[in-house]
Amino acid sequence: MKAVVMTGANKPWEVQEVPTPTAEPGQVLVKVHASGMCYTDVWSTQGYGGDLYPQTPGHEVVGEVVEVGAGVHSRQAGDRVGTTWVQSACGRCAYCRENRPLTGQTAMNCAAPRTTGFSAQGGHAEYIAIAAEGTVLLPDGLSYQDAAPMMCAGYTTWSGLRDASPQPHEKVAVVGIGGLGHVALQLSKASGFETIAITHSPDKHDLALQLGADHVVASGEELAELGGADVLLVTTNAFDVAEKAMAGLRVSGRVVLSGLDFSKPFSISSEGVPFHMMRQQVIGSTHGGQHYLSEVLGLAAQGKVKPILETFSLDQATEAYDRLASGKMRFRGVFTPAANG
Amino acid sequence: MKAVVMTGANKPWEVQEVPTPTAEPGQVLVKVHASGMCYTDVWSTQGYGGDLYPQTPGHEVVGEVVEVGAGVHSRQAGDRVGTTWVQSACGRCAYCRENRPLTGQTAMNCAAPRTTGFSAQGGHAEYIAIAAEGTVLLPDGLSYQDAAPMMCAGYTTWSGLRDASPQPHEKVAVVGIGGLGHVALQLSKASGFETIAITHSPDKHDLALQLGADHVVASGEELAELGGADVLLVTTNAFDVAEKAMAGLRVSGRVVLSGLDFSKPFSISSEGVPFHMMRQQVIGSTHGGQHYLSEVLGLAAQGKVKPILETFSLDQATEAYDRLASGKMRFRGVFTPAANG
Amino acid sequence: MKAVVMTGANKPWEVQEVPTPTAEPGQVLVKVHASGMCYTDVWSTQGYGGDLYPQTPGHEVVGEVVEVGAGVHSRQAGDRVGTTWVQSACGRCAYCRENRPLTGQTAMNCAAPRTTGFSAQGGHAEYIAIAAEGTVLLPDGLSYQDAAPMMCAGYTTWSGLRDASPQPHEKVAVVGIGGLGHVALQLSKASGFETIAITHSPDKHDLALQLGADHVVASGEELAELGGADVLLVTTNAFDVAEKAMAGLRVSGRVVLSGLDFSKPFSISSEGVPFHMMRQQVIGSTHGGQHYLSEVLGLAAQGKVKPILETFSLDQATEAYDRLASGKMRFRGVFTPAANG
Amino acid sequence: MKAVVMTGANKPWEVQEVPTPTAEPGQVLVKVHASGMCYTDVWSTQGYGGDLYPQTPGHEVVGEVVEVGAGVHSRQAGDRVGTTWVQSACGRCAYCRENRPLTGQTAMNCAAPRTTGFSAQGGHAEYIAIAAEGTVLLPDGLSYQDAAPMMCAGYTTWSGLRDASPQPHEKVAVVGIGGLGHVALQLSKASGFETIAITHSPDKHDLALQLGADHVVASGEELAELGGADVLLVTTNAFDVAEKAMAGLRVSGRVVLSGLDFSKPFSISSEGVPFHMMRQQVIGSTHGGQHYLSEVLGLAAQGKVKPILETFSLDQATEAYDRLASGKMRFRGVFTPAANG
Repeated sequence: MKAVVMTGANKPWEVQEVPTPTAEPGQVLVKVHASGMCYTDVWSTQGYGGDLYPQTPGHEVVGEVVEVGAGVHSRQAGDRVGTTWVQSACGRCAYCRENRPLTGQTAMNCAAPRTTGFSAQGGHAEYIAIAAEGTVLLPDGLSYQDAAPMMCAGYTTWSGLRDASPQPHEKVAVVGIGGLGHVALQLSKASGFETIAITHSPDKHDLALQLGADHVVASGEELAELGGADVLLVTTNAFDVAEKAMAGLRVSGRVVLSGLDFSKPFSISSEGVPFHMMRQQVIGSTHGGQHYLSEVLGLAAQGKVKPILETFSLDQATEAYDRLASGKMRFRGVFTPAANG
Repeated sequence: MKAVVMTGANKPWEVQEVPTPTAEPGQVLVKVHASGMCYTDVWSTQGYGGDLYPQTPGHEVVGEVVEVGAGVHSRQAGDRVGTTWVQSACGRCAYCRENRPLTGQTAMNCAAPRTTGFSAQGGHAEYIAIAAEGTVLLPDGLSYQDAAPMMCAGYTTWSGLRDASPQPHEKVAVVGIGGLGHVALQLSKASGFETIAITHSPDKHDLALQLGADHVVASGEELAELGGADVLLVTTNAFDVAEKAMAGLRVSGRVVLSGLDFSKPFSISSEGVPFHMMRQQVIGSTHGGQHYLSEVLGLAAQGKVKPILETFSLDQATEAYDRLASGKMRFRGVFTPAANG
Repeated sequence: MKAVVMTGANKPWEVQEVPTPTAEPGQVLVKVHASGMCYTDVWSTQGYGGDLYPQTPGHEVVGEVVEVGAGVHSRQAGDRVGTTWVQSACGRCAYCRENRPLTGQTAMNCAAPRTTGFSAQGGHAEYIAIAAEGTVLLPDGLSYQDAAPMMCAGYTTWSGLRDASPQPHEKVAVVGIGGLGHVALQLSKASGFETIAITHSPDKHDLALQLGADHVVASGEELAELGGADVLLVTTNAFDVAEKAMAGLRVSGRVVLSGLDFSKPFSISSEGVPFHMMRQQVIGSTHGGQHYLSEVLGLAAQGKVKPILETFSLDQATEAYDRLASGKMRFRGVFTPAANG
Repeated sequence: MKAVVMTGANKPWEVQEVPTPTAEPGQVLVKVHASGMCYTDVWSTQGYGGDLYPQTPGHEVVGEVVEVGAGVHSRQAGDRVGTTWVQSACGRCAYCRENRPLTGQTAMNCAAPRTTGFSAQGGHAEYIAIAAEGTVLLPDGLSYQDAAPMMCAGYTTWSGLRDASPQPHEKVAVVGIGGLGHVALQLSKASGFETIAITHSPDKHDLALQLGADHVVASGEELAELGGADVLLVTTNAFDVAEKAMAGLRVSGRVVLSGLDFSKPFSISSEGVPFHMMRQQVIGSTHGGQHYLSEVLGLAAQGKVKPILETFSLDQATEAYDRLASGKMRFRGVFTPAANG
């Protein structure tokens, strides 16, 4: 089959002919219909994920089950499924022995997880073999293309919103309007919250309003003037921007961090009314359980969230990577390998 | 192998020689070291679980893995494991498609679960084949005999306590001091809560105090005189007793129901200060996730909860059933098949 | 001043000339602009609240502060304020010594609260003296008429919704579309929840849809066919209707009881899939804290909830009572004493 | 009466004869029996609280009501009461209009609160006039001396523990064993949690064990070796110590900040397994509501927490301040003005 391959740290993506995998016991073989590109693909290409080369990247994968391995009772040929970054956990490490609810696709704290596009083959290929427990069934009426970005961008931002425990009547601000942020805005609005977009890019104002923002502001101070927000969903990796946005965070407000700024820690200021007297919280959040994934897929199937996409064939991998790495992708790139066949 | 078999509704248990199962793909074969008897075993024998005969009962099973099926990476021969009532879910029904955290052993709401001792062979036998995902690893230092009752009696009562969201400084009352109640008392006390036993049996007063109760009362009125409780853990099937105990439930107090009274509904009285003005809650609770099971196993391994046991060989099945069905078992019966070998 | 007076159990309301109260230390004197009628007014007239006669009923009171008592720093002449059923607590009883957050207007569990229209004069009059701590400031832009029903009907239903802890993506069903229910529907929809009205009255179908219901059903079975609800807000006093609606309650679903059926207890059925295996909850809820009241007043000021009103002068008290007691009021009656002056 | 007076920024405390206050409407006059010293007293003396001089410091005040102002129904002469930092809120600012549950003594976010020892006279004096709503009744059997430190040290640390939502079976680590920490250790242990003290001072090891610590460690790494903690209660102002302790914070662990390090922000590291992938939280916490205060007073009355005290007469104010400011106080200083009379 055809697959995108990372051949080494900081080397360009190559499209290669590689052996088609088969469904081992406990696995399903999936014909890939759409595979989304996440900025993490750039990090793994740059070597931040360790020396995992050669490897096929891509952890927003959806497609059709074409083969079912021994011992798999929960999936059938023809099923429309998807998988995410973590497919399965080892079941034996100290973390796994605690049997926390966050198993399967969310067992990020497992010492030896099977990770799509990292320890195991990723989705930018014609076929992928996935642990059956690491798949979710897609709802009817949701296209593969619209489903793919839900497997990470949708899953991450919905987890962030859910982990913030927003209450009816509260206000949610989304910091950064990119691949994640443009999805977060829609999810917050669809959930009934007054939603504010925080962006420094004047050219994103109109789009933010179209996506559902009630207001668009450029800073925490502007946010404060509007009355502030109870939740700040940080979808940018620029922590200095997020820290400054806290000027608009209300009493008992929560900042949700779903990512990392490699250049600096996240700092809670000691100036102004102190954080502890404001009873604020900083909440670390990531893929929070397959139920969150199912919820966000359901919202997508209802049309309440729709990613803005650029689609690519596998043969366009080099061009796709360039747009992704340079920040030109608007807003989510998706490979559609089956469309090439 | 030797196994206890229910041959029909209301028929006596028989000890039969049956084929030893093997580990299919996705399964492990376990040599049973201890298998606890739950009152549900009586119900399944009486036909309340449907026409599942012939079937081997028992859903509090622990033992050693002796064979690992294809596709199983999380378990190894020699592992000390246990399983509970629900081993695995179908993965395809409406409930399973929601992917709630309560998967694996707790997917009670699956339309077609694999249930130990009901749809699949139970634990009152020398060997049992279990879905690998339905097993948990036992902590070191916990004997098989003490572990077995944790798989249902411990798991149920700990889930009840956890689902009640008891807060530091709150008071917990346990209604009924039997197979579940004598475990619940220990769990509440080990968690730091002032603990009150509610029992009509004067002969259980001293035992309740030994197990950790700070007070023993006979009624909700007596409980109210002590200042009341914030949580009522109902471990009896006599709902009229539990309803009356609510006289001692404080403002914002919670009643946890973990079982059923086949003879009547649970009634929330309209007399006295109304339930809604007391802001009270009735909480339905059952096995609440494998993390709860791991937590209670951890407490047992630390010696913070220790079941009071009567042990039986498989050959004593008839006697064991009689004691269980007649309410003479004090407090938990456990088969120890490996001790016969 | 002119005031409606209950002169004895089951006696008709009289409009009398009584002495105008003054603001004692700690109180404010309020010129009443609107005073809503709650069905509880009927109960107090029928004697369910004890022998409190003669007394002026009415606990949904809003108006303008015209006099400020000694020691009051938080209110000024000209303030637009409202009060609710419980104005203040004794501060000394066992409940009050716990200092729970639910003080002031929500201290229903105080042994000797000052209750508007019960232990203290109610609002169906030209003036009322209120404990300053028992008042809330009304938001700008909200008319007195629209504010009055928020003091109990709005406050009760919003507390019910909040106490149910509805999560983004969940579905809320409102049982009964009357004085409370028609407000509850709007509040649920305004909070972003898919909202279902449950009513036996075909003539309320269209109205329910206009008020924001996504669906209207006649029973729990019909609700189940739609996929069920996660929250049931019971706004009717007919508990048999609410019990039957539980047929449409989903796994982990919550039933909120905000009132009482004097004719029967609330029964949790032992039939079908048991309550505890469904992990459901029954939650008692009442006025849940002045922040909830402020939140619902804020929603009303934004126009997100608007009560359907019939207005009356104090001189129309007999007619108003008849419509209220006979169930003909559609949907909330409000006295407007200042409009008479 | 005799009172300690701060006469200017960085000036030594003076003991002066000043007019005895009287109980204005809404207030009670309290004969001070004990007034605890908090390190905040040093900050207000150094000018961090603004130019509030001359002022009497002290916000851990307990004593006997000797006079009741007009309009006060909740307090009587002879009542044993206490007050905290915030006595009452303005009731009119944007924060107060939200009517959050955190009223009375905890309305720190009010724009113009009445603050004991800051905007209003503090407790290091023979008498103090307090807003009645800002007092709590002391439980029987608790001495004034043991009660005083509960009004801030106890209240702060109990709020921190409660705000961390510790679950049964979780582990709590206390960072810093001083005025707050030695109370926090006892509160955690009394609540049933496995409790770890983190301290760099070898001379505090034995004391920490006596106060209830199950383990004493010197660093986050040592904490990690023990299996880590689910909650870190930070009771030191040295944020670098707290940040490093996070090396021992478990998945889903929570760090509670109850104070401020004037020298630096609190930094969440970007190294190691990232904060968001650990799903950790940083929680700002302060006096969390009078119910928390009542709870901690109840624990003190039961002897479950007992502060280690040094007592002083008002005439020893200079000596007391020196010990406090220099960090020599072990562990809480309390003035006992009534003992001088």
